[in-house]
Amino acid sequence: MHRTHTCGELTIKNVGQAVTLSGWMQRSRDLGGMTFIDLRDRYGLTQLVFNMESNASLCEQARSLGREYVLQITGTVAERSNKNNKIATGDIEIIVTYLQILNKAQLPPFTIEDDTDGGDDLRMKYRYLDLRRNVVRNNLQLRHLMAQETRNYLNTLNFIEVETPVLIKSTPEGARDFVVPSRMNEGEFYALPQSPQTFKQLLMVAGFDKYYQLVKCFRDEDLRADRQPEFTQIDCEMSFVEQEDILNTFEGMVKHLFKTVKGVDIATMPHMTYADAMKFYGNDKPDTRFEMKFVELNETVKGKGFKVFDEAELVVGICATGAAEYTRKQLDELTDFVKRPQIGATGLVYARVAADGSIKSSVDKFYNTDDLQKWATAFSAGSGDLILILAGAANKTRKALSELRLEMGSRLGMRDKNKFSCLWIVDFPLLEWNDGDPNLLASLAGRWHAKHHPFTSPKPEDIELLKTNPGEVRANAYDMVINGVEVGGGSIRIHSKELQAQLFEILGFSSDEAQKQFGFLMKAFEFGAPPHGGIAFGFDRLCSLFGGADVIRDFIAFPKNNSGRDVMIDAPSSITDEQLNELSLEVKLPEK
Amino acid sequence: MHRTHTCGELTIKNVGQAVTLSGWMQRSRDLGGMTFIDLRDRYGLTQLVFNMESNASLCEQARSLGREYVLQITGTVAERSNKNNKIATGDIEIIVTYLQILNKAQLPPFTIEDDTDGGDDLRMKYRYLDLRRNVVRNNLQLRHLMAQETRNYLNTLNFIEVETPVLIKSTPEGARDFVVPSRMNEGEFYALPQSPQTFKQLLMVAGFDKYYQLVKCFRDEDLRADRQPEFTQIDCEMSFVEQEDILNTFEGMVKHLFKTVKGVDIATMPHMTYADAMKFYGNDKPDTRFEMKFVELNETVKGKGFKVFDEAELVVGICATGAAEYTRKQLDELTDFVKRPQIGATGLVYARVAADGSIKSSVDKFYNTDDLQKWATAFSAGSGDLILILAGAANKTRKALSELRLEMGSRLGMRDKNKFSCLWIVDFPLLEWNDGDPNLLASLAGRWHAKHHPFTSPKPEDIELLKTNPGEVRANAYDMVINGVEVGGGSIRIHSKELQAQLFEILGFSSDEAQKQFGFLMKAFEFGAPPHGGIAFGFDRLCSLFGGADVIRDFIAFPKNNSGRDVMIDAPSSITDEQLNELSLEVKLPEK
Repeated sequence: MHRTHTCGELTIKNVGQAVTLSGWMQRSRDLGGMTFIDLRDRYGLTQLVFNMESNASLCEQARSLGREYVLQITGTVAERSNKNNKIATGDIEIIVTYLQILNKAQLPPFTIEDDTDGGDDLRMKYRYLDLRRNVVRNNLQLRHLMAQETRNYLNTLNFIEVETPVLIKSTPEGARDFVVPSRMNEGEFYALPQSPQTFKQLLMVAGFDKYYQLVKCFRDEDLRADRQPEFTQIDCEMSFVEQEDILNTFEGMVKHLFKTVKGVDIATMPHMTYADAMKFYGNDKPDTRFEMKFVELNETVKGKGFKVFDEAELVVGICATGAAEYTRKQLDELTDFVKRPQIGATGLVYARVAADGSIKSSVDKFYNTDDLQKWATAFSAGSGDLILILAGAANKTRKALSELRLEMGSRLGMRDKNKFSCLWIVDFPLLEWNDGDPNLLASLAGRWHAKHHPFTSPKPEDIELLKTNPGEVRANAYDMVINGVEVGGGSIRIHSKELQAQLFEILGFSSDEAQKQFGFLMKAFEFGAPPHGGIAFGFDRLCSLFGGADVIRDFIAFPKNNSGRDVMIDAPSSITDEQLNELSLEVKLPEK
Repeated sequence: MHRTHTCGELTIKNVGQAVTLSGWMQRSRDLGGMTFIDLRDRYGLTQLVFNMESNASLCEQARSLGREYVLQITGTVAERSNKNNKIATGDIEIIVTYLQILNKAQLPPFTIEDDTDGGDDLRMKYRYLDLRRNVVRNNLQLRHLMAQETRNYLNTLNFIEVETPVLIKSTPEGARDFVVPSRMNEGEFYALPQSPQTFKQLLMVAGFDKYYQLVKCFRDEDLRADRQPEFTQIDCEMSFVEQEDILNTFEGMVKHLFKTVKGVDIATMPHMTYADAMKFYGNDKPDTRFEMKFVELNETVKGKGFKVFDEAELVVGICATGAAEYTRKQLDELTDFVKRPQIGATGLVYARVAADGSIKSSVDKFYNTDDLQKWATAFSAGSGDLILILAGAANKTRKALSELRLEMGSRLGMRDKNKFSCLWIVDFPLLEWNDGDPNLLASLAGRWHAKHHPFTSPKPEDIELLKTNPGEVRANAYDMVINGVEVGGGSIRIHSKELQAQLFEILGFSSDEAQKQFGFLMKAFEFGAPPHGGIAFGFDRLCSLFGGADVIRDFIAFPKNNSGRDVMIDAPSSITDEQLNELSLEVKLPEK
């Protein structure tokens, strides 16, 4: 072993001990006849001392070292005169008697400090240097701890961790699959799993009762900032359960994580229907760290001659408590915000409630004092509040107002990263109409698409609607939402072959296609499938939420960029003709 | 919840309680006016009782149920008159008052019993039924436990579990990669990792110090009985360590697993050099549950006119203690065994030491009593022992004798599955000559090939030989062998850019190729790489060894067959033209 101790463990108790340490040179300071070096490893920093008077050649050697050199030193632990109470080893230093350079280092392309001067591209290219920074390593240590505590909780409840296969079968009805050509089965392909969905259901048919897995999943999507082509799920399934059982079990898991990882107690999580979430927040993942619920105003505002409101399908607003003092400039900013193309509102109406209770709106031409008092009543707005109103087509307007609500929450400091508001969204629609989702194969447009996935059970009381009005059918499906982020979702599954076949039919599968792709599952349902359901949590996202970050990338050791590239290893890359030949493949690049 | 208790937990203490259970109908017996049903779940069996006298219609309903029906029942716990002490619930039964069929079941294609009548093909096709069998489910529960205990041990030692990417870069110098076409980067491919080797080394460069991961790896090999295209490794790496540190740490891990999972204490593991393993066992993974070491006889047997021995490069034998009474028929069987083409010996010479100490050999024509006494001395053979000798080209003969040794070990009952003999093999050769390994690309034949992998460090004292006699260079590489199975292997890595470049050159990489494939690693070595090393255990194999089985397949929930197919889901399979087009690929099947 190249050390007797780590750089994080020596204290005043070790004074006088001979020790050997190894690590990286974090920094060096020459002060008169002394040289001080901070030696760093994963566990901490230890100060090394070299004295020109007592050992000139060793001190000269120390002065020749560069940042990030890998060193092994031997010396004696001594009490420091200038103690540093910010680090665990701050009471001691090592009087070095022997120094060996284990490896030299070039000057890194960015500084290895908590605040680095490296931009994203540089950090990703030299990720192994970026990972040396405490902030990034702490993220991955948090992830490690969360993984262990997830397992601890589920193991205690008798869940069994089962690995499901990575080389499976392409089922292109969902998002796009990554595929893997088979050399031994010429012209055929495996697919990488988007989730272990069918396998975990088969484990329930097999009587495994309670399953979990922390598992890599894959989705060939056009990437957004917070998506990765490979991602990790906490994937779970239970038998003989109803929806409430799943919600209770996994509410317990998330509470356990908050308690053990962050020391935070989470209250019982409210259940909100999808319909209410859309009505009151315009969003199926509402940030409930703050209220600011939507108030619908069609009854209140129409018929006063203001054409924008009169012609709108929906007039809806929020009340920003205490924001009445917003300046004209701030209000213009908000107007610009909602008019941005990605939000798409045509304008913003506002009304301020002054200290004396009087109300001034941006549409005073159309609404008199009495009218505006009715607005205030609708919002329960009081002195000092600011009412913000949008109007237009219902869905689009709700979506825009949801963005405005989040913006106001941020501006008013109501989205504290250290506060956590968790809830369940329930009663999702079973189906949604696909009019051309770019993340699905083009051939799937103009069909019903499963909102969760094709194995989700409809609510028994809605099953009749499947034939008459599929869009109205509610599912036994649920999402867990924390601070406006969907961290997990699942459903009670179909366990009847007939109902599953009916669903495939509604989703536009011919019975041949259904048989070819999912025949094995429907066959399994013939041999005694228990009632079952489950959930999957996005582990990368859950970690970033716990870490107080917005993007998942810094909670993944070696992430890919927005083009799906690993810029460090330079993948993907071309392969040799010999490899292509063995796989019976030819690359046909489209003509540019 | 469809139950108040599982089928494995009710005992005499619960008598009188009203309970609800759910599970599968294991079997049913009608005895006079009573019907008894064994209800099964993952946790056990519980006996249900239906009485024709007290509730005829319910009893009739019970008699109509088929095997593997999924049932939910409510009833009262009662003490049994005929207790069954073989099961945990054997003291009680449930007097059923309510019965609901949760799902019907067709008759399974094989019986769901410990000894099933299902052949391998049928079991794999209906794996979800096979997994209902206790023996198979117990294997996967063992695997679960081993995974948790592996993590417990490593977590205690401050290892951090880090997930490395699955979509990486093809490096076809090893076994064949599975590749994944990239849609977003046309004409380019990811590869699935054969191991996270370079990533775990980069984590060491990043200062992670101690890393582990239970991780899926992939190898596109022509499959053998105990290989799978995807397999799981316990993958580990440590910094600032020497070989002894790794051996101690992971000897500790395996002892911990034996202790916690099987309650077995394992003694300190001996270290055996590769050279000794080949000399004394003809095998780099010797089964040391029994001795029966090779004895080389060139000095002893040559020059007596027996041409086979005189002309052989090596004459070598084993002594099978107590086997002198083998009949002519048994000896003929052994001769046939060694002459099988996959073993390839041309014949077998034997000598029996009789009770009176006299020796009779199959070549008495050439060897007199004195000669044969010298043989006995060489083997330390005593009364009742059987000497078995092969001769021929050295390597081939050692290999054949190794097979014969294992065969004799089995025949003499010395390979008890409940006895475990662990050891380390050390000082492997760094390189081996590839004269056409079918598991490598053909273009790699006629080159040196890394015996472990190209990142393994040569022993410092052998580095000079790299230039003059690469085949003689020993590596800082080690394998853990248990009962003749290589369960894990690793090495101290190269951490110098120059030495790594030299190795790539010896392995036949042009410096362009080395740069293209591994430039990122050599670049990382410029920024302060610590000395480091690691190991990977074949987790599937370790589980099967702990489970006392020869094949790994029953320790994998959904394994593939010998053609790499999942016969249950029917993968791999063809994909649509739309998918191929999006990937810029064309399938070109070779003409038959």
